[in-house]
Amino acid sequence: MYEGAIQDLIDELGQLPGIGPKSAQRLAFHILAADNADVHRLSAALNRVKELVRFCDVCFNVSENDSCRICRDPRRGTEVICVVEEPKDVVAIERTGEFRGKYHVLGGAINPLEGIGPDQLRIRELLLRLRGGEVKELILATDPNTEGEATATYLALLVKPMGLIVSRLASGLPVGGDLEYADEITLGRAFEGRRTV
Amino acid sequence: MYEGAIQDLIDELGQLPGIGPKSAQRLAFHILAADNADVHRLSAALNRVKELVRFCDVCFNVSENDSCRICRDPRRGTEVICVVEEPKDVVAIERTGEFRGKYHVLGGAINPLEGIGPDQLRIRELLLRLRGGEVKELILATDPNTEGEATATYLALLVKPMGLIVSRLASGLPVGGDLEYADEITLGRAFEGRRTV
Repeated sequence: MYEGAIQDLIDELGQLPGIGPKSAQRLAFHILAADNADVHRLSAALNRVKELVRFCDVCFNVSENDSCRICRDPRRGTEVICVVEEPKDVVAIERTGEFRGKYHVLGGAINPLEGIGPDQLRIRELLLRLRGGEVKELILATDPNTEGEATATYLALLVKPMGLIVSRLASGLPVGGDLEYADEITLGRAFEGRRTV
Repeated sequence: MYEGAIQDLIDELGQLPGIGPKSAQRLAFHILAADNADVHRLSAALNRVKELVRFCDVCFNVSENDSCRICRDPRRGTEVICVVEEPKDVVAIERTGEFRGKYHVLGGAINPLEGIGPDQLRIRELLLRLRGGEVKELILATDPNTEGEATATYLALLVKPMGLIVSRLASGLPVGGDLEYADEITLGRAFEGRRTV
């Protein structure tokens, strides 16, 4: 509907996930009105991500070097590996400040409907890391949904014979939430996992 | 929270209107996983919009030339000018196929709270266009909200002494809507503007 460049930009923005035609149009006109410097910073940031960012050779977190900040950090313990689905899960766990070991990013979860099996995830690379014998515990921090649970179960079966401690993050009521608004599965898990005080 | 380039991209995306920190993160990881060619097309489209797109010298619609596609079109009538707030309003009206005249894009609406008065809009340029004497009717198609109504009233007072026909788009029930869900102001306008059949 528009001429040349502005329509091209609307089309390109509309390809991004969660951005429909109306949002794409609104963003394009925002960009048209924005400072040149701001837009060039955004376009340079897009290109730099593709040039510079790759995956850590050890844990497959995002990194700009052979190994990521966490894998390079000598103060982090090497006896516990926390297995997550995506790099953003690493950030979420780092934000808690509760974990001082290393990570392993699978790159997703087992999902047969989308054709993602164990071979599409970095499970072989995880097993290679465990071979050294230094790792004593594996924390399975995949998402608490069907795919995440399936992946955790699969990994637990795989590594338990190696004599490792295998744990899973606790399920239960979110802190600060209301009991009456919890769904029945979460409330059920909270009962199952109750602790003596 | 992330290293270098990916955090830069999240920050830049988070500056865009309607994109919060979570969406910015999701978009950045989408871009990280996307084809290089797709990302380069997006970044090139951003730069091209800033380089190529400017405003039509006549109507101030977006254009890549001195005058826009509509102003250049010899089949469009020159007796009626439809006054709108933004280029996207031109597209919305063009989509109806109901209007074959020319446009004038004000670049906004009068909004004292945001410091936008008549001088910040292209009203002087509109009056210059009317001086030729060729224009017979002005359709005020500003938005049917407070700012749009104020702008329309201001323009009507300004141009009526010039002997032009001045009209405003009809307000009323949206076609395909339910009467019971219409708000009272819209329903009131529909009564006011009723037609004999």
